[in-house]
Amino acid sequence: MNLNYKNIEEAYDKIRHLLIKTPLVSNDYINNLLDSEVYFKLENLQNTGSFKLRGASHKITKLSSQKIKNGVVAYSSGNHAQAVAYAALKHKISAKIIMPKNAPRIKIENTKKYGANVVLYDTFFESRENIANIIKEKENRSLIKPYDDIDIISGQGTVAIEITEDLKKLSIVPDIYLCCCGGGGLIAGSSTYLKYHYPNIKSYSVEPKGFDDTKKSLKNKKITNNSPNAKSICDALLAPKPGDVTFPINLNNLDGGISVTDDEVKKTIILLSEHLKIIVEPGGAVAAAALLNKKINTKNKKIVVMISGGNIDLELFSSL
Amino acid sequence: MNLNYKNIEEAYDKIRHLLIKTPLVSNDYINNLLDSEVYFKLENLQNTGSFKLRGASHKITKLSSQKIKNGVVAYSSGNHAQAVAYAALKHKISAKIIMPKNAPRIKIENTKKYGANVVLYDTFFESRENIANIIKEKENRSLIKPYDDIDIISGQGTVAIEITEDLKKLSIVPDIYLCCCGGGGLIAGSSTYLKYHYPNIKSYSVEPKGFDDTKKSLKNKKITNNSPNAKSICDALLAPKPGDVTFPINLNNLDGGISVTDDEVKKTIILLSEHLKIIVEPGGAVAAAALLNKKINTKNKKIVVMISGGNIDLELFSSL
Repeated sequence: MNLNYKNIEEAYDKIRHLLIKTPLVSNDYINNLLDSEVYFKLENLQNTGSFKLRGASHKITKLSSQKIKNGVVAYSSGNHAQAVAYAALKHKISAKIIMPKNAPRIKIENTKKYGANVVLYDTFFESRENIANIIKEKENRSLIKPYDDIDIISGQGTVAIEITEDLKKLSIVPDIYLCCCGGGGLIAGSSTYLKYHYPNIKSYSVEPKGFDDTKKSLKNKKITNNSPNAKSICDALLAPKPGDVTFPINLNNLDGGISVTDDEVKKTIILLSEHLKIIVEPGGAVAAAALLNKKINTKNKKIVVMISGGNIDLELFSSL
Repeated sequence: MNLNYKNIEEAYDKIRHLLIKTPLVSNDYINNLLDSEVYFKLENLQNTGSFKLRGASHKITKLSSQKIKNGVVAYSSGNHAQAVAYAALKHKISAKIIMPKNAPRIKIENTKKYGANVVLYDTFFESRENIANIIKEKENRSLIKPYDDIDIISGQGTVAIEITEDLKKLSIVPDIYLCCCGGGGLIAGSSTYLKYHYPNIKSYSVEPKGFDDTKKSLKNKKITNNSPNAKSICDALLAPKPGDVTFPINLNNLDGGISVTDDEVKKTIILLSEHLKIIVEPGGAVAAAALLNKKINTKNKKIVVMISGGNIDLELFSSL
């Protein structure tokens, strides 16, 4: 399946009315600390608190009017859930969302607030894919996959249109792009668009330790699973393996994979709140954690860092 | 003393290289909640964590080269302190800053980090103006006042140039402007610029209850003090009375004053972190508190809300 910058620009035309054009910000303290020029893309300030609205709303615009009538179903630990619920609300269609019982409270509550019918499941005993498929068949709903779908990927990629626009205004040509990676939809779409505009950019996926399946898969040049039983506070990034659609794109675009520990992520959340004055969820902070923990050499370089979401329970935030 | 939009544009030309052009953001949840279109100006994302850098850096550009050599002195509970320290560092001049012993730790630490010589004083027994004047005389330093100086006011007013630029891009004409008010420098400068571009805009100062001297003074049409012994968590907004320079400007520009309680401010800080994903300090949140607590009717209106700073100790933030 091919994806190019034009697909992403077409997606943007369809969904931009639902989006906030989120800011790209720089911070003097962090620039001095690293001897780098860092530009943070604040998708935590996006509607629904994460970038996921881009893909979900794009997918819904692609459904036939009959499918639209029957409504949608999705499974998600939370950010995709909220995004599908919100996009469905804006399109005035019905949404049923399967979420883990132990998802962050803020994510479950917001998904309900957007009017979706939430079905909770037990991650230990049940399979969300099975539940979703049963609902899909029984209720004729369209499944909105979280990442492994070319329309989702091109929707997520629209974030890079905004990044490019802002960089051009500043006459900046970026050297490095650091982006979180769960199933790989966001980085597949955004790295495609950035590579078109900046052919020399080096793009790296960043994942939580134990869930660094994309890092391993890039090294092995084939899809490689995480070991089971891994744990991480990055609830948004716990996909078991790269997607069949996302991985070939990422294999083509990326220069490598990076992993960060939960402790590195926690320290990063604190530093971002102290110096950038923003609330970032664990999964949204991994790219910044790779930067701040100097996982690659960024000295004298211009780096774009994705802050992908901010849906953290304030109790957890406070406990940090 | 006259102030017009041209003074503010001249100031911007001199200082913009030291500034972040901070984002103006909207939030769907808050817009729906209030049936309004709200645009938050995020000066908490400014270098040094508040708007104060605008005025302090502008004042320093106005000093003669001899005065520059002798260095500067300032007194401040924290945001002006950090701003003067940072601006002095960027201009490679010496700064001595008088701060209350009980100022937020983050503000004292950051001021030191920017290389300033910090002198702590006891707010109960000592007068910061006296200490500053002694240092000024003895060391021939130039005093950088926190607000009551036309160069400071025009510097702070530059925030409205950015607001206007962003509103124009969105083809928005704002109806209402809500801005925090301590000594009144920020609102004096920014309301002047906004009034020039939007003659029908209604601008309101927002202050903590007990420190609503500008509200009272506007009502009385003359400078009126706060009662002594008032208390508020809004450490950035505790000026005892409007300034001799700021007040006439505000009396001319403003349509009224609003006050908010500490409890309203606390709830607002939490709501802004949950929905806007930003860290705001108490003084930086008062304008949003006036909005969210419906102190004026904003229904179907377009409102610009100043978020002026984010320098809150994370311990206090967590305790909320």
